[in-house]
Amino acid sequence: MIEDPWLWPRPHGWEAGVLRALDEDLGTGDVSAGLLDPDAVADWYIEAQAEGVFCGIGVAAWLLGPETCPGSTLEVHARDGDPCRPGTLARSGRSPAGHLLSRERLALNHLMLLGGTATLTSRFVAAVAGTKARIIDTRKTIPNLRTLQKYAVRCGGGFNHRMGLYDAVMIKDNHIRVAGGIGPAVRRARRDLGHMVKIEVECESPSQAAEARDEGADVVLLDNMTLQQLSESVHLVSGSAVTEASGGISLETVRAIAETGVDCISVGALTHSAPALALHLEIR
Amino acid sequence: MIEDPWLWPRPHGWEAGVLRALDEDLGTGDVSAGLLDPDAVADWYIEAQAEGVFCGIGVAAWLLGPETCPGSTLEVHARDGDPCRPGTLARSGRSPAGHLLSRERLALNHLMLLGGTATLTSRFVAAVAGTKARIIDTRKTIPNLRTLQKYAVRCGGGFNHRMGLYDAVMIKDNHIRVAGGIGPAVRRARRDLGHMVKIEVECESPSQAAEARDEGADVVLLDNMTLQQLSESVHLVSGSAVTEASGGISLETVRAIAETGVDCISVGALTHSAPALALHLEIR
Amino acid sequence: MIEDPWLWPRPHGWEAGVLRALDEDLGTGDVSAGLLDPDAVADWYIEAQAEGVFCGIGVAAWLLGPETCPGSTLEVHARDGDPCRPGTLARSGRSPAGHLLSRERLALNHLMLLGGTATLTSRFVAAVAGTKARIIDTRKTIPNLRTLQKYAVRCGGGFNHRMGLYDAVMIKDNHIRVAGGIGPAVRRARRDLGHMVKIEVECESPSQAAEARDEGADVVLLDNMTLQQLSESVHLVSGSAVTEASGGISLETVRAIAETGVDCISVGALTHSAPALALHLEIR
Amino acid sequence: MIEDPWLWPRPHGWEAGVLRALDEDLGTGDVSAGLLDPDAVADWYIEAQAEGVFCGIGVAAWLLGPETCPGSTLEVHARDGDPCRPGTLARSGRSPAGHLLSRERLALNHLMLLGGTATLTSRFVAAVAGTKARIIDTRKTIPNLRTLQKYAVRCGGGFNHRMGLYDAVMIKDNHIRVAGGIGPAVRRARRDLGHMVKIEVECESPSQAAEARDEGADVVLLDNMTLQQLSESVHLVSGSAVTEASGGISLETVRAIAETGVDCISVGALTHSAPALALHLEIR
Amino acid sequence: MIEDPWLWPRPHGWEAGVLRALDEDLGTGDVSAGLLDPDAVADWYIEAQAEGVFCGIGVAAWLLGPETCPGSTLEVHARDGDPCRPGTLARSGRSPAGHLLSRERLALNHLMLLGGTATLTSRFVAAVAGTKARIIDTRKTIPNLRTLQKYAVRCGGGFNHRMGLYDAVMIKDNHIRVAGGIGPAVRRARRDLGHMVKIEVECESPSQAAEARDEGADVVLLDNMTLQQLSESVHLVSGSAVTEASGGISLETVRAIAETGVDCISVGALTHSAPALALHLEIR
Amino acid sequence: MIEDPWLWPRPHGWEAGVLRALDEDLGTGDVSAGLLDPDAVADWYIEAQAEGVFCGIGVAAWLLGPETCPGSTLEVHARDGDPCRPGTLARSGRSPAGHLLSRERLALNHLMLLGGTATLTSRFVAAVAGTKARIIDTRKTIPNLRTLQKYAVRCGGGFNHRMGLYDAVMIKDNHIRVAGGIGPAVRRARRDLGHMVKIEVECESPSQAAEARDEGADVVLLDNMTLQQLSESVHLVSGSAVTEASGGISLETVRAIAETGVDCISVGALTHSAPALALHLEIR
Repeated sequence: MIEDPWLWPRPHGWEAGVLRALDEDLGTGDVSAGLLDPDAVADWYIEAQAEGVFCGIGVAAWLLGPETCPGSTLEVHARDGDPCRPGTLARSGRSPAGHLLSRERLALNHLMLLGGTATLTSRFVAAVAGTKARIIDTRKTIPNLRTLQKYAVRCGGGFNHRMGLYDAVMIKDNHIRVAGGIGPAVRRARRDLGHMVKIEVECESPSQAAEARDEGADVVLLDNMTLQQLSESVHLVSGSAVTEASGGISLETVRAIAETGVDCISVGALTHSAPALALHLEIR
Repeated sequence: MIEDPWLWPRPHGWEAGVLRALDEDLGTGDVSAGLLDPDAVADWYIEAQAEGVFCGIGVAAWLLGPETCPGSTLEVHARDGDPCRPGTLARSGRSPAGHLLSRERLALNHLMLLGGTATLTSRFVAAVAGTKARIIDTRKTIPNLRTLQKYAVRCGGGFNHRMGLYDAVMIKDNHIRVAGGIGPAVRRARRDLGHMVKIEVECESPSQAAEARDEGADVVLLDNMTLQQLSESVHLVSGSAVTEASGGISLETVRAIAETGVDCISVGALTHSAPALALHLEIR
Repeated sequence: MIEDPWLWPRPHGWEAGVLRALDEDLGTGDVSAGLLDPDAVADWYIEAQAEGVFCGIGVAAWLLGPETCPGSTLEVHARDGDPCRPGTLARSGRSPAGHLLSRERLALNHLMLLGGTATLTSRFVAAVAGTKARIIDTRKTIPNLRTLQKYAVRCGGGFNHRMGLYDAVMIKDNHIRVAGGIGPAVRRARRDLGHMVKIEVECESPSQAAEARDEGADVVLLDNMTLQQLSESVHLVSGSAVTEASGGISLETVRAIAETGVDCISVGALTHSAPALALHLEIR
Repeated sequence: MIEDPWLWPRPHGWEAGVLRALDEDLGTGDVSAGLLDPDAVADWYIEAQAEGVFCGIGVAAWLLGPETCPGSTLEVHARDGDPCRPGTLARSGRSPAGHLLSRERLALNHLMLLGGTATLTSRFVAAVAGTKARIIDTRKTIPNLRTLQKYAVRCGGGFNHRMGLYDAVMIKDNHIRVAGGIGPAVRRARRDLGHMVKIEVECESPSQAAEARDEGADVVLLDNMTLQQLSESVHLVSGSAVTEASGGISLETVRAIAETGVDCISVGALTHSAPALALHLEIR
Repeated sequence: MIEDPWLWPRPHGWEAGVLRALDEDLGTGDVSAGLLDPDAVADWYIEAQAEGVFCGIGVAAWLLGPETCPGSTLEVHARDGDPCRPGTLARSGRSPAGHLLSRERLALNHLMLLGGTATLTSRFVAAVAGTKARIIDTRKTIPNLRTLQKYAVRCGGGFNHRMGLYDAVMIKDNHIRVAGGIGPAVRRARRDLGHMVKIEVECESPSQAAEARDEGADVVLLDNMTLQQLSESVHLVSGSAVTEASGGISLETVRAIAETGVDCISVGALTHSAPALALHLEIR
Repeated sequence: MIEDPWLWPRPHGWEAGVLRALDEDLGTGDVSAGLLDPDAVADWYIEAQAEGVFCGIGVAAWLLGPETCPGSTLEVHARDGDPCRPGTLARSGRSPAGHLLSRERLALNHLMLLGGTATLTSRFVAAVAGTKARIIDTRKTIPNLRTLQKYAVRCGGGFNHRMGLYDAVMIKDNHIRVAGGIGPAVRRARRDLGHMVKIEVECESPSQAAEARDEGADVVLLDNMTLQQLSESVHLVSGSAVTEASGGISLETVRAIAETGVDCISVGALTHSAPALALHLEIR
């Protein structure tokens, strides 16, 4: 068995989506494939055309290799999370030519998208090097690709926020208003929810952050604060709860934010605005 | 009935994907929703926070409005394809608060993604204004979002290339090599395929373009050519076949390419590297 | 609109399973339905035949009411989580007779199953009344019914443990062995996982519990301990982490366990061995 | 190929449900699995912890063995339908540790549920030993698990009633009322339905049973009758139609019912209230 | 509510297949629909262009009417099972023009296919008028359309054989050979299977038919027999079991077969070779 | 690996439909299969019982061979598109008897249906031999079988029209009326649609055909014209656009139509009224 290219833990449940995407591209069949000799095989390789971080090699290998494409063989050159520059090989292999040409684009589309997120994440991570801040993702993901995108964030050196609305509580201004304050909201969540669910409170000022701390929030979200407000909030909350900064954070501003001592910095752009990583598949 | 927000023709078959994405986000249920009064309703509006072109209003309206969210009402302020600037309203409405907060993020994720593509497309279209060149898309799309992304390209003033491997032939170098030349490849495609299928040949030089023209290709793809090669190829092919330029085209280079007289310019970045359009949903 | 019978938060995503179950029962069609007058309507009610706690009224109402069965009307008599005794009405309604007879069994199967879990949970909750212990569920659920069963536990006054393998870490003996001890295992989980994920460590002795506490586990699972070991462990851990007792707990033994001061008691039988709650649907 | 553990006939179509249940438990991925060495393998065995009858070994083997979990090997120790006592081995095997720990719970959940039904069925079967009565199931099954539960009834020595509303007619009081009597109802069913469909009539008194017999019912259901009514009905109907007793039958009452000479006794509890069979999976 | 066009009992579960077929035809969207005014509505009617029997009106009404196509209204002119001649109206309605043109072909494809089977069935039924023979279908159906095709057989005056491999036993020569004769095969089926399952034995000679009768088969299939063998078999079996003739039966041969006194005649052509019923949809 | 029996290009995406059809036939399981020895294997062959053209061998091989039925072996005797007569072998193999008997009918149902279409197509193709006319299909296909039926048309020597509403424009009378004439309709389609989409205009007279030619239609559909009108239209349009004749074409009339010089003749009957090709599967 060839070496597994996944960075663990391997995300679950993405295969059905990839097969659906194959149907999306192939439809009733590849009308150009009839021009090929059905017996032809091709030796190919995938290589990076830009500097960045690989992600999606496991998806590509599943799509082009023996697990779904009988008669193929693969060779591992890099793993998800590995850095790349122009010319770095990700994978090479030998496959039936018809299947290869029908699946090449889809494999590359995954590698470009996920490599884009891993690469952008790695730049944010580099920008805060030496601080204790973790770069984390958000729910601003591409519909139906969240599991893979959040995996790409991990491959780029980042960390995951909650996976969805179901695995952690985020108390926002509307919840606070309805519940009658941060205190009643946190207490109601504690009363009704299980002991495995973390509770985060969105705060817009240091005084709100202090209140959330006093009420026993697990995480305090410091949203759209100035650097000074952030520093003050971190000072108030640290040791009692995890602190998270959010709101329009860019590669230019992230280091200063990290230097306030905040624990986590959430960046929506990782999953909604990362440019694709350039790669191509070549046939020898 | 409220005015339909779609720019026609309305894409088909995207609803199942949106419901799957709702499952992706909601999982076993929104654990924060229990903090809300089940009877609460909210008046909301979605507005742009940046300059660009709207797309995805029809998706958002389906997700937040009466079609899937009973008890909601909607008001139309803009339609897909309309330009926006910070503060331009897309939609407003009144919805049960629990449903609204559970679906808000998914509606915005669609609007940001599709608006990003429409906006970037509109910039390429503006860059070639006054030439006859059409800006067109590629198969470098996000897995399972191709139909909506190609709709977004149309909303931005662009046009669609083939939808997938099934609706038109693209004869590439590997096909040419196997078939024994451009001529045999085109003739074999004509011989085997129906009369409704267009045939495009990928060419790397003016002489190949001339050969494709002579063999009766419907479309000649001029791939990674210099401006001079492009001009020469257009001169050779125009009037006999449609010409399409491709290969690493940017906002900086697109106008010069258009001025060669090419019919279409295909831009992968429209669907793989468009930054999200900034929007938010506010509750009054 | 009629009053919603759900105890919030409403579980998400169960409808597809109910429709699949309808297909399971109806197959190619109800061969007895042809004996009925297609225009006949029936006035019906669902009532408990035993003492317990209702759960699944929302599912039944969705299946027998206007949302999926046009031409039906419903009247609310009780809500999920309400206590019942023989003769307590859950719902009544008027529906087309053919649809009613085709869907009656499936509605009752849900009410019996979920009511069984809610009822058994309520007995465990009653047994520990006056202590601080919460009765919680496990992953020993019926395949594909976990979301609804965990909702039934909440309706019976219990609380939910993690929903699956994805939303919290449980470090068991195998993980500990591989990682080289409780300390390395907890530290590795903290290093690799996001700040929203709670970490629980399964311990078999008070000294292990103390070690888990020292390493900063969020929750310490006290598995199959004697009452004395439990008391000792609770004494060691309380204030630093949540304590959970587990292992073959019955209605006879649960109170003594609760009196050790443990925070949570997890009971697999709630979801794998609860006898059905007796109910029937009668036509007037 | 290893020996097949199924008691024939093997039920069809359950695999999709098991994969859905795997998604239910794994969600976006097992967050604890990252603590394991990706190359680790584990030697494991599943053994009973109580007296009963095995069922679900085929499901467990499919989930833990080479068919869906590459790199695994299995050894057969028992088959579905075999009796067990504490310590009886069902299966042993060697599997990649990560996959094993992610799938162990789901395999056990099936074995506990189906073993519970097989075990309870076997107790009812034992209770009527020496009479001609067959123990049969009902449509009071767990949603979406009917095929497997009915298989479990067969493994416990019982027999299946109709599979759903589609494969046999059950004429109940409402059908009789609408049709204008047992005679018109049976005649209408005979007139309209194919020759492969059996017709059963639900009767509440010996005189109704005699009427159903006279009208040519294939099966006469004797519902909620006293022992004396049962005896009388069996006497009237035997030789002309199959007789079936139903209604609140328990292990205490079933033998007396069987001794009335009835052909079948249907027991809802087999599939709605069977306590789980205790089993566990151990790693050596 | 408009009158329901179904001949009861209404088949279950066909809607998902119709929606899949709509996706098959519409793909990424109707590229011609953009030529229409989005607000245009059309008044249309469907009429027969040949003599026959209607079937599929319920499907067409679901597809073109308010249940799935908001803004449509329908008028009933005929019901499934009604005879037609050129010019007989099935349905008329008013619908949004874009939706109508996108769904028209699929509605007609169902009406042509199902009307074809109903019509051919009615011809076989007419050919045996006055005899007691029922015309019945087989499992030689179009993949995934069995439920609707068997409904069409009923609309044409025929009856259904078993629905699939799951609802009745057919003992064929291979089963007989393995079991060691008709007797052991029937006895084994009786021993292992529930009391609601009918048992049919395929016989190739009158002596086999007599043996099947003696062993208590519910139905005796007389396969590919001469008229004389059929008569002899019917004479031997009648009164003890249902008789069914099969094997290459045509409109020319069916009456003579019916006159042998056989109970049922199964005709594969009803569902595998019925020419389409000619119909069209016209816009006023 | 055995020789692939597909005539290229292989259609995509049919496997899921075949598995659904297997569920349709097997339901909860083959109740007759329990009569077989679980270890029995059978040597079988499929042979034609009539003259025609094979199609569906690839589907049958997938269903009966090692890809989905472990333990089977196959031998190739003919390929899709090969002619057959009574006794011509399509495939032979050895398979587990239980699986073979459960899947035999479904394999044959595909071979009969697709062979029927290939055979009828080949008759139309033979009827126009020596002319330049191509026999083409329509959208009058069996719901959810279009991809395979259109493949069968190719196997019979015919060609495919558009696959659905999504891959080419057909401008009909309603579009023309709304758009204000053929000219505006064609120009609007050209303006709005991509360069890969062909445009066909439905014409009812030679003068309309000439107008469509002048407006630059790619294909001119000559609908329900007399032979003289056809000749005149072909004369007017040839060289400028592809010509297609349609409307109630039969084996009797097709040659005269072909001799008018038309490029394509579309025949709905190929896919809606082809009688099944007779084949059977025999066990040695």
